[in-house]
Amino acid sequence: MDFTLKHTASQSEARAGILETDHGVIETPIFMPVGTAGSVKGIHKKDLKEDIGAQIILGNTYHLYLRPGMDIIERAGGLHKFNGWDGPILTDSGGYQVFSLGDIRKLTEEGARFQSHIDGSYHLFTPESVIDIQRKIGADIMMAFDECTPGDADFDYAKKSLALTQRWLDRCVNQMAKTSPLYGHNQSLFPIVQGGVYPELREQAARHVTTIPSDGYAIGGLSVGEPEADMYAMIDVVNPILPKDKLRYLMGVGTPVNILEAIDRGVDMFDCVMPTRNGRNGMLFTKNGFMNMRNAKWADDFSPIDPEGTSFVDINYTKAFLRHLIVSGEMLGAQIASQHNLAFYLWLVKEARRQILADTFKDWKEEMVVKLAQRL
Amino acid sequence: MDFTLKHTASQSEARAGILETDHGVIETPIFMPVGTAGSVKGIHKKDLKEDIGAQIILGNTYHLYLRPGMDIIERAGGLHKFNGWDGPILTDSGGYQVFSLGDIRKLTEEGARFQSHIDGSYHLFTPESVIDIQRKIGADIMMAFDECTPGDADFDYAKKSLALTQRWLDRCVNQMAKTSPLYGHNQSLFPIVQGGVYPELREQAARHVTTIPSDGYAIGGLSVGEPEADMYAMIDVVNPILPKDKLRYLMGVGTPVNILEAIDRGVDMFDCVMPTRNGRNGMLFTKNGFMNMRNAKWADDFSPIDPEGTSFVDINYTKAFLRHLIVSGEMLGAQIASQHNLAFYLWLVKEARRQILADTFKDWKEEMVVKLAQRL
Ligand SMILES: [Zn+2]
Ligand SMILES: [Zn+2]
Repeated sequence: MDFTLKHTASQSEARAGILETDHGVIETPIFMPVGTAGSVKGIHKKDLKEDIGAQIILGNTYHLYLRPGMDIIERAGGLHKFNGWDGPILTDSGGYQVFSLGDIRKLTEEGARFQSHIDGSYHLFTPESVIDIQRKIGADIMMAFDECTPGDADFDYAKKSLALTQRWLDRCVNQMAKTSPLYGHNQSLFPIVQGGVYPELREQAARHVTTIPSDGYAIGGLSVGEPEADMYAMIDVVNPILPKDKLRYLMGVGTPVNILEAIDRGVDMFDCVMPTRNGRNGMLFTKNGFMNMRNAKWADDFSPIDPEGTSFVDINYTKAFLRHLIVSGEMLGAQIASQHNLAFYLWLVKEARRQILADTFKDWKEEMVVKLAQRL
Repeated sequence: MDFTLKHTASQSEARAGILETDHGVIETPIFMPVGTAGSVKGIHKKDLKEDIGAQIILGNTYHLYLRPGMDIIERAGGLHKFNGWDGPILTDSGGYQVFSLGDIRKLTEEGARFQSHIDGSYHLFTPESVIDIQRKIGADIMMAFDECTPGDADFDYAKKSLALTQRWLDRCVNQMAKTSPLYGHNQSLFPIVQGGVYPELREQAARHVTTIPSDGYAIGGLSVGEPEADMYAMIDVVNPILPKDKLRYLMGVGTPVNILEAIDRGVDMFDCVMPTRNGRNGMLFTKNGFMNMRNAKWADDFSPIDPEGTSFVDINYTKAFLRHLIVSGEMLGAQIASQHNLAFYLWLVKEARRQILADTFKDWKEEMVVKLAQRL
């Protein structure tokens, strides 16, 4: 894997780069659609590639481990073969999902013991086991096992949690060294910077991860309930410490505005369930603002969903018809909204890249964050 | 509208024809995907046309009347404009759906009073009002308002019910004559033959509808709980009485075997929710038999869904991956299965037509009904 920085914008930390993987090239900044169980909800693989323009997708280790399970994934020849997506894939470490389980998981030095949300069976994730699992999945980018510190954690909790994450990172790195890719393509491990909303912890965390050579570094534990200003402040603390010539991935973020603000602060990669989840609920993002399709104002608006949109759904369907489908609970409504939103997110990062390369990013971003926040 | 009979098979009543409508030509025998609320569940419009090869779709008057309502449909310029499907559309009369409501509907000479399943509001469908509604929807083929006699109705009930259907038909015909198309394209009204499972009633019903000039005639009230043998027997009674040079539509039927048996008996047109509904439940129809994708035997079958299938989903996804999606309740599983099944149904009627024109239908059909009934 190889990351090359092409250009950094004037009056901004925004960067345009290229990440080369064994499954193809990724132009950054980039957004990754989330394919929880190996499938991006409601989206055909060919539309993901050809219509939406996705360059990399994310799979969830926790979900894939439970279903279909590692035996099936391994016999398929890895996730790329199993789901038929032959582009780059990133897997999370399962940590975030396990910690979201609340009462049915228990954290120890060893790892996280949890009960399956599907059948109640007991399982243990350790730094070593999640590396082994991600080897079996065959992700191009694997994530270290960490504790995602809650957004409202106090300093002492965040400090202890970070220390655990750091000890776990060392174990992940050891396990990586002891194991090899199973399917003939390279796999990178990205460390994760935690530390809650505490600058000194984030700073220490960022310094710690940079002691580990890697193709990229992730910032985790943001957009988990803390104020937005804190999120931006933490990025401002971390990014100057991370190596300039390596990829930076902000996990689980966020709104279109969040993404532009983070690009402005030097982030290269994003993932979020928002385009699909909010789409299923009838919320559409456009370059002129967002629309709640349940609103009665769209009932007799027979204009195309988004005349400036890049997806076929944007001109093939009207706002009134989409509203009807969403209000009626028709599956096609969720499909159309998800496809539109993903295409919009991919347009947004592609256009951001164009503006960075043209050295017009800062002005463009200032205009966009105002427009994007408007309710249409 | 114009129906032309091209060929009738040897040793069979199976017919190949062409139905010309203002929205395009339909090659019969044909299957109509059901687009209840104006959308075929889980299927993009362009896939319906280009991948599945649908030539006509069905809309449900009951559902469209309640949501989005006639005001929106009329302001859109009819259903073709509202949902963007510019091919032929057939609407049912709403009768079948209303009668399925059970306790919350009441039948009188005037019509059917019912409560909306959405908000409990009260409504009245009469032969006149459903003609007016179908004028507003703008369907190329409108259906007469009838009582769909239950499959277990006794002779007296079926006889009284038929008499009501016949009085209602006269009122529908009168209302048709008094009204005009609203959107510049022609609309045909198809009468419906009822009569339960009683040959003498079916015979009388068939004779009655033929007194009304029409481009096509429908056989209703079958596949509603009666034995399959009774269904075939009723078709055998009715079809010889219906005019040879007019289209024959068997409503709401059925399995692939049912469809071939009915084509063999001279039926030209079909609709059914089975390909989409069973698909959502994980059942796939193929030319070699049917598959229940929930079955564990598919868990590690990494071969394409249907190497002989005509849809892109058939080769883009494996059986193991589809099983995983269905078992995990992923929306994409329902989409893939629905698309496969609809493409298969359209292939089946297209191939039947080819066999009819080549005068090889009878032998082919005898082979197919054995294969289609196999569990894979
Ligand atoms: Zn590969
Ligand atoms: Zn038209």
